[in-house]
Amino acid sequence: MAQVKVLIAQGGGPTAVINQSLVGAVLAARAFPQVQAVYGARHGVRGVLNEDFVDLTGEDVNHLERVAASPSSALGSTRDKPDTAYCLQMLEVIKAHGITHFLYIGGNDSSDTVRILMAEAARSGHTLAGMHIPKTIDNDLMGNDHTPGFPSAAKFVAQAFAGADLDNAALPGVYVAVVMGRHAGFLTAAAALARQGVDDGPHLIYLPERAFEMDRFLADVKRTHERLGRCVVAVSEGIHDASGHPIITRLTQGKGGTAERDAHGNVQLSGTGALADLLSEEVKSRLGIKRVRGDTFGYLQRSFLGCVSDVDAREARDVGAVAVRMALKHGASGSVAIRRDASAPGYVSEYTVQPLEAVAAKTRVMDQAFIHAAGHDVTPAFVDYLRPLLGSQLPQAERLKGRAVAKRLRPQG
Amino acid sequence: MAQVKVLIAQGGGPTAVINQSLVGAVLAARAFPQVQAVYGARHGVRGVLNEDFVDLTGEDVNHLERVAASPSSALGSTRDKPDTAYCLQMLEVIKAHGITHFLYIGGNDSSDTVRILMAEAARSGHTLAGMHIPKTIDNDLMGNDHTPGFPSAAKFVAQAFAGADLDNAALPGVYVAVVMGRHAGFLTAAAALARQGVDDGPHLIYLPERAFEMDRFLADVKRTHERLGRCVVAVSEGIHDASGHPIITRLTQGKGGTAERDAHGNVQLSGTGALADLLSEEVKSRLGIKRVRGDTFGYLQRSFLGCVSDVDAREARDVGAVAVRMALKHGASGSVAIRRDASAPGYVSEYTVQPLEAVAAKTRVMDQAFIHAAGHDVTPAFVDYLRPLLGSQLPQAERLKGRAVAKRLRPQG
Repeated sequence: MAQVKVLIAQGGGPTAVINQSLVGAVLAARAFPQVQAVYGARHGVRGVLNEDFVDLTGEDVNHLERVAASPSSALGSTRDKPDTAYCLQMLEVIKAHGITHFLYIGGNDSSDTVRILMAEAARSGHTLAGMHIPKTIDNDLMGNDHTPGFPSAAKFVAQAFAGADLDNAALPGVYVAVVMGRHAGFLTAAAALARQGVDDGPHLIYLPERAFEMDRFLADVKRTHERLGRCVVAVSEGIHDASGHPIITRLTQGKGGTAERDAHGNVQLSGTGALADLLSEEVKSRLGIKRVRGDTFGYLQRSFLGCVSDVDAREARDVGAVAVRMALKHGASGSVAIRRDASAPGYVSEYTVQPLEAVAAKTRVMDQAFIHAAGHDVTPAFVDYLRPLLGSQLPQAERLKGRAVAKRLRPQG
Repeated sequence: MAQVKVLIAQGGGPTAVINQSLVGAVLAARAFPQVQAVYGARHGVRGVLNEDFVDLTGEDVNHLERVAASPSSALGSTRDKPDTAYCLQMLEVIKAHGITHFLYIGGNDSSDTVRILMAEAARSGHTLAGMHIPKTIDNDLMGNDHTPGFPSAAKFVAQAFAGADLDNAALPGVYVAVVMGRHAGFLTAAAALARQGVDDGPHLIYLPERAFEMDRFLADVKRTHERLGRCVVAVSEGIHDASGHPIITRLTQGKGGTAERDAHGNVQLSGTGALADLLSEEVKSRLGIKRVRGDTFGYLQRSFLGCVSDVDAREARDVGAVAVRMALKHGASGSVAIRRDASAPGYVSEYTVQPLEAVAAKTRVMDQAFIHAAGHDVTPAFVDYLRPLLGSQLPQAERLKGRAVAKRLRPQG
């Protein structure tokens, strides 16, 4: 039996369940008798480049289970986006350590890294199996019904808006909250799951799949505020105008255009309250509404300790294990994907492996059927799609009923 | 037996457990045979002024229990701060409806309202018992070990920083998060409860009890970042310079001084990401650190659905019930307070009633013994004080151990 060495890494933004995939893969690998070692690379591909490995072959199972239940990439992560030269250096390290299987837990950039690495391994005649294990709160991977990490982040967003809507009902005004997501609006759309009754917020939802027009936004807010005396708005950080310019840059342009950009040239959207403040200021100054509050959910969406969908945790665990089994039993390379069995009466997910090229560096956005024609809401089809993913422990809020008492001093009042 | 009518209202900022106090009071009142009716005023004192009452005398108990478990003031709230004239108008309504007992769930402003109202009732010869039921996430009421609402908000802050610290460990840089609290730093200090091991964040905690100096802050961040390669910072929204000017106004001054002010003339601190952005920008531009992220926890701290300390929920329920019993059995007026039995081996709380004057319009800040001498952290005494209040369900995060694998390509590396 040929000896096998498995190397696992985590890339991109952390999620609440990314360590379920790590532990799922580690434990599945350790169950194969031919596996000599299971290594973890610290900080993704950078750890491969730097030979920065930890040995997980004998790591205590109970300890691993507690890690699995903890948010954020336990191995550390990276935003490095390797090119061919970078991958060739990684390959040298992989050869030096006799690694036979490489598993990368990440989003579409990470799947692209596996694609390049596999191509270079094949070119150099090194036998290597490479699997991409899906992960992203953005839910933007092609060929997946949804991606691990998204349901837990969506649960956070739904619970946040449920509470914020009750808060806004208690002290009425306009509340604008900005949700993560550059191109795909899934996470912002999850705000709709906060609603339980008619006229519950969020009353308006703006997605990056539609061009954002400030005047229309203000008209929407005005109309809602006039009808209900309050208005709760969910906005994607990635909203942009008709020509594709992010709305957030309106502010930074005014200040000299110092917006931070990432390795891909994208404007930094998270880690600042600028967009919520910009929209709040517009509502205040142009609609004359006094109580306007802007929140930005920020990093809590993906890392808050203690907000996990049990469906998400189970599936994240599964995709890690499936990746190992497909690679070790069948010598497969590719990207694990979650599909939904549409013929099942309830919610049933299943796993498959798709070619790396199907996922790598591509971005899925929301289906048209999920976006309300008015452009400021989602459809019931989206709510039906998301609800089972949030799992079994979604808290419900209750509003007070209470019959009105007849007035005595001002009976007509 | 004289007929009794109880009126309950909720004032100020909502909390995660303010409805436990409401339901505790409603159910306790309904248990007294002489109680003819239990009314709730919509939106606090404003609902009293406007005779906007709902009848809770027959409200279904199961429904009330679900309301009790929901965040944010179910009756609605108000920021109105009644003066004598306002209280006289309230008294007219109270007389017209034959209200004999008034219960106001709120902070120090609300206790002051009860104080003024009771004084006016006495002056006009109307027999009225008035109780203040404590509530505030700021934990700033005099004569209380702590206040209902604070432990659940503290739990949110601790869980948020626990996750954000893991996130920052995965993708290192500087992370600054702003926590609610104008004068009292208790909620910001709760960030310390996120730590489980040595060098866990938050690494720096800035409280409004100490003057904030930008240069010292930058030196603290620089030192931490050099030592750990990362730095997580908790900052109170109320930080101010040595002369008392809020740091947040530095930004608004630059933009023309358009800071929003409340009825008390206080600058609006919440509902904007401006302070986190200001501090992040300082770190970026003056320390030259590239990855700097600022979050503002905003309204999620007090309203997030599904983050409640079970100790807090129980005590919030109790103070509502205690207020009713003290008022109905003993005809008492005053403010219910939570004390801690320091002689008990574990955590034991008990309830008392203190004069309204002891609480009204006064602000408690953090004890000196809770603030680290260095000015950018809390003491172990604070951690010991807060830990039992967070209840039995505080999630714990686990970090990966894993023995380092010896390098093969660069053994010295």
